[in-house]
Amino acid sequence: MANRNKTMKVGFIGLGRMGSGMAGRLLQAGHEVTVYNRTPDKLKPLIMLGAKPAAKVSEACRGDAVITMLADDEAVESVVFGEGGILKSLRRDAIHVSMSTISVTLSEKLTAAHERAGQRFVSATVFGRPDMAAAGKLFIITAGAQDVLGTCEPLFEAMVHKTFHMGDEPKAANLVKLSCNFLIASALESLGEAMALISKGGIDRHSYLAILTSTLFTGPAFANYGALIAERKFEPAGFAAKLGEKDIRLALAAAQNLRVPMPVASLLHDRFLTLLARGGENLDWSAIGGLAASDAGLEDLPKAA
Amino acid sequence: MANRNKTMKVGFIGLGRMGSGMAGRLLQAGHEVTVYNRTPDKLKPLIMLGAKPAAKVSEACRGDAVITMLADDEAVESVVFGEGGILKSLRRDAIHVSMSTISVTLSEKLTAAHERAGQRFVSATVFGRPDMAAAGKLFIITAGAQDVLGTCEPLFEAMVHKTFHMGDEPKAANLVKLSCNFLIASALESLGEAMALISKGGIDRHSYLAILTSTLFTGPAFANYGALIAERKFEPAGFAAKLGEKDIRLALAAAQNLRVPMPVASLLHDRFLTLLARGGENLDWSAIGGLAASDAGLEDLPKAA
Amino acid sequence: MANRNKTMKVGFIGLGRMGSGMAGRLLQAGHEVTVYNRTPDKLKPLIMLGAKPAAKVSEACRGDAVITMLADDEAVESVVFGEGGILKSLRRDAIHVSMSTISVTLSEKLTAAHERAGQRFVSATVFGRPDMAAAGKLFIITAGAQDVLGTCEPLFEAMVHKTFHMGDEPKAANLVKLSCNFLIASALESLGEAMALISKGGIDRHSYLAILTSTLFTGPAFANYGALIAERKFEPAGFAAKLGEKDIRLALAAAQNLRVPMPVASLLHDRFLTLLARGGENLDWSAIGGLAASDAGLEDLPKAA
Amino acid sequence: MANRNKTMKVGFIGLGRMGSGMAGRLLQAGHEVTVYNRTPDKLKPLIMLGAKPAAKVSEACRGDAVITMLADDEAVESVVFGEGGILKSLRRDAIHVSMSTISVTLSEKLTAAHERAGQRFVSATVFGRPDMAAAGKLFIITAGAQDVLGTCEPLFEAMVHKTFHMGDEPKAANLVKLSCNFLIASALESLGEAMALISKGGIDRHSYLAILTSTLFTGPAFANYGALIAERKFEPAGFAAKLGEKDIRLALAAAQNLRVPMPVASLLHDRFLTLLARGGENLDWSAIGGLAASDAGLEDLPKAA
Repeated sequence: MANRNKTMKVGFIGLGRMGSGMAGRLLQAGHEVTVYNRTPDKLKPLIMLGAKPAAKVSEACRGDAVITMLADDEAVESVVFGEGGILKSLRRDAIHVSMSTISVTLSEKLTAAHERAGQRFVSATVFGRPDMAAAGKLFIITAGAQDVLGTCEPLFEAMVHKTFHMGDEPKAANLVKLSCNFLIASALESLGEAMALISKGGIDRHSYLAILTSTLFTGPAFANYGALIAERKFEPAGFAAKLGEKDIRLALAAAQNLRVPMPVASLLHDRFLTLLARGGENLDWSAIGGLAASDAGLEDLPKAA
Repeated sequence: MANRNKTMKVGFIGLGRMGSGMAGRLLQAGHEVTVYNRTPDKLKPLIMLGAKPAAKVSEACRGDAVITMLADDEAVESVVFGEGGILKSLRRDAIHVSMSTISVTLSEKLTAAHERAGQRFVSATVFGRPDMAAAGKLFIITAGAQDVLGTCEPLFEAMVHKTFHMGDEPKAANLVKLSCNFLIASALESLGEAMALISKGGIDRHSYLAILTSTLFTGPAFANYGALIAERKFEPAGFAAKLGEKDIRLALAAAQNLRVPMPVASLLHDRFLTLLARGGENLDWSAIGGLAASDAGLEDLPKAA
Repeated sequence: MANRNKTMKVGFIGLGRMGSGMAGRLLQAGHEVTVYNRTPDKLKPLIMLGAKPAAKVSEACRGDAVITMLADDEAVESVVFGEGGILKSLRRDAIHVSMSTISVTLSEKLTAAHERAGQRFVSATVFGRPDMAAAGKLFIITAGAQDVLGTCEPLFEAMVHKTFHMGDEPKAANLVKLSCNFLIASALESLGEAMALISKGGIDRHSYLAILTSTLFTGPAFANYGALIAERKFEPAGFAAKLGEKDIRLALAAAQNLRVPMPVASLLHDRFLTLLARGGENLDWSAIGGLAASDAGLEDLPKAA
Repeated sequence: MANRNKTMKVGFIGLGRMGSGMAGRLLQAGHEVTVYNRTPDKLKPLIMLGAKPAAKVSEACRGDAVITMLADDEAVESVVFGEGGILKSLRRDAIHVSMSTISVTLSEKLTAAHERAGQRFVSATVFGRPDMAAAGKLFIITAGAQDVLGTCEPLFEAMVHKTFHMGDEPKAANLVKLSCNFLIASALESLGEAMALISKGGIDRHSYLAILTSTLFTGPAFANYGALIAERKFEPAGFAAKLGEKDIRLALAAAQNLRVPMPVASLLHDRFLTLLARGGENLDWSAIGGLAASDAGLEDLPKAA
């Protein structure tokens, strides 16, 4: 707990909509943050908040820890294992905090590689939207060695509403993240089917949603996504369909490795492929909740404008 | 609104765990209630609260309205269309309030039959468990002619936490009820798959559930049923698997008539058939959330003790 | 076997494309055939072959046996149980031969009703196309009392290439027929998925089909339907999509009653609903084999011209 | 055609049950064959037929061509890209003929790697069982440059009943092979569901199969596998469940890359995972056709002895 007032020297790689908010919170909490992004225009607002720009990945690896918050496995692999990457650049005993939504397999590979390099590795996956990131109201799922996570606590403190710890193996946080995204996508599909049914039966979708969210489904997943599906408002994307497809694919890959049949996840993956095949890859992922209405002849398939 | 203080003379047919609580609330609110049940032993506690016992269906049909709260289509058809049934016994302009979870097709048939008989018919389907029924905290979905529903308001007042109105056609309330039960069953299956995945990945199911219910799935559906699935506690049944199978079957029948493909509903129906075929018909319906773990080789198929 | 030369006095109800060919074969074999159809214009060609026209169902019920070959359960129920129907008109010990594709439940109901009426009832379901019916080359699945089927043998002789006997309960022939149509529909869907895959991979569908039909799938189901799917030639309908939907629905109803989960059958039913909802009810049922290509963005959904 | 009498100097890597028969045929046709297998005991019978043993992969790469017939992607990658592998050992313009069932992605990778190395690469995937391999009665799907395939014709001549050419891109032969195995697995599942249905309905499975194979499903896929499912004879494995799982997984990976939703393939993959998770990985892959009966409560899940 003494850690809470301690400031750290940290690199932050990946400044998309989530990463920018998170790095901003670290700066506001007094941490010394060096920021790197493949396209450097994203750095400006953070430099104004006091961040130091890094021209290369290696320049973001000179502190106590480096955080990665990137789009997918390929981006993380490139930044970690590539020429001048994290693995070569981070000093012994320094920490790599992986906050991206990546595969369980990559998480295992990172754990092993950092261990061989004498570095520390933890996973800290993230729930929340960009506005929650900017407000320091994220939920974070951590997994890895307790002492390392303890060291990182001042960082998490700056970003979270609440933290959940999932044990000593970093990959546990990745599996939890993927399975939660599966549950959200499952709610999208089920809502889509239910709304196609009642809508074709002559019932107003918003009135129907009001019942759901007043009774059994009062949580934000149903309220927020239910409204998008009721309005068929799939643009602009808060979280793009192609990322949704990726997360379900990674959940299925984990299920494959663990030999866990997941028929609803399989069905969701086919729904995402349909959406992508028909031009919807940049729609919000809630657009899979529009496919049942299309199959029922109510509306056309969701498409990007 | 003047209705609210008016007491009514009403019959109540079907005194299972839900019906008994509901009839008890009507008595407490001062209504004159005549109660009928196929097995008369259920009547005693209500008689002590002031109910008049009916030996036959027809004796429960002499008031302003008669309420049916029965297990399935067959029971309702028998009580309405059978010898000495509601249709023959209810006076002109008296009201039949159908609160059972029945098919959309039967609701249409009841609407037409009561109209031909010069009687009034409304649907008022119910969300809530037996304890909520006994406490007058139900959610009720009404549909039918507004004037008739206005007349019945003193009855609903005694039973509800909140009422939702779904328009002039009684069947709308039945379709909403069935589609909501589909959404709950869908949550059961998805939770079952997610828990099989994380559990086989070495993560504690209760810790996992705590994340879900603190973040995106804060509603009672996930909290209550998630706990049952995490503990694999499928007995005693709050709502039996065979009733769950029936509701998904009726939702699919409505989808068939409206030509709405519902792949998740189809998958759920096969899950319920598996559960029933393997001896689980008297387990709680949340036991379908245990099938994914069985398929993953984690546990045996859920079975009744 | 002595029966083979015996001619019978028989009614034939239902003169669609299959029924007309079958009745024609009976006439050619020397049987005395009285024909009935709801729309009497179908009778003419058969009258020219020597058939006696019946103005009412009852007039077709005066012989040794009456054959029904109708579109669905509703048609059979109307003709059997309706005013002046078979049940009231057939003499004691005369035979009703049900050759339509009907539900297992209706078959049970017919068995019981005819037994109560002192009449005999057997099922004899049919495989083959109209040209095979006209040529007397059908496959017939019989079920029911052996002595009754023996009596009917001269009738079957006139129509079949081969007969299979399925035991004493008439419903067995109905279950076999429905399950076979499920297998054909399953082949349609799988072919559709495989062809969407190889086609999007740049491979010619006809070349691909040539491999299948030369190696493992040499039977007529794959050859005939594979060609339709490869060409996307779904009109004119040899067997309409709405009849395909009906047969899968009846197979699922049988599965429901026997508590047999059939996930592929469930998936097929949703495919048929999609086809019907989007305007394809009069296409050939092989059009469900075009849905995978549509979902893959290769072609539009199959629609009637 | 002049090629037919030409004998070639060829390496053969992978002498499982299929590979041994194929290499034997090459020897009988007079080709000079150098054989390599990871476990060398498989070489003896071929040496007796005149094969030269190779102690290392590189020794099998000194001729006009080298054939690989291995279990999976990993084995092929190891043999091609590993230390002293085919890529390093094959001379310029010599040919690698890939006959294994591998992924489309690996086929693309091999095409590119061999091109960069100045070598030639073709795919020639195989249909048939070990006895057909030993008798030279295989079906072979070829894809790649016509001139290279022409050069290899004397090799194929020794092994095949019939050859099908799928164009210039080697990966086409891999996609065709995977999609055909998908169709077989689909038949296994559908047969399993149909047999569970009729069996629970009191009908004998062998009588039922006799109908199928006499009418619409006369090909070997239904006849051979239908008999195994009817008898629930899943041991010994002709083709192990774990290989079936692999093939469906590779078909789904190809579908993923081409964005083709394949719901039946997804369902099959979950069936294979169930089988593997419950101890059936060494059963014949037709054991997925036993899962429907298990879900229906007819029999226990198939398990290895």
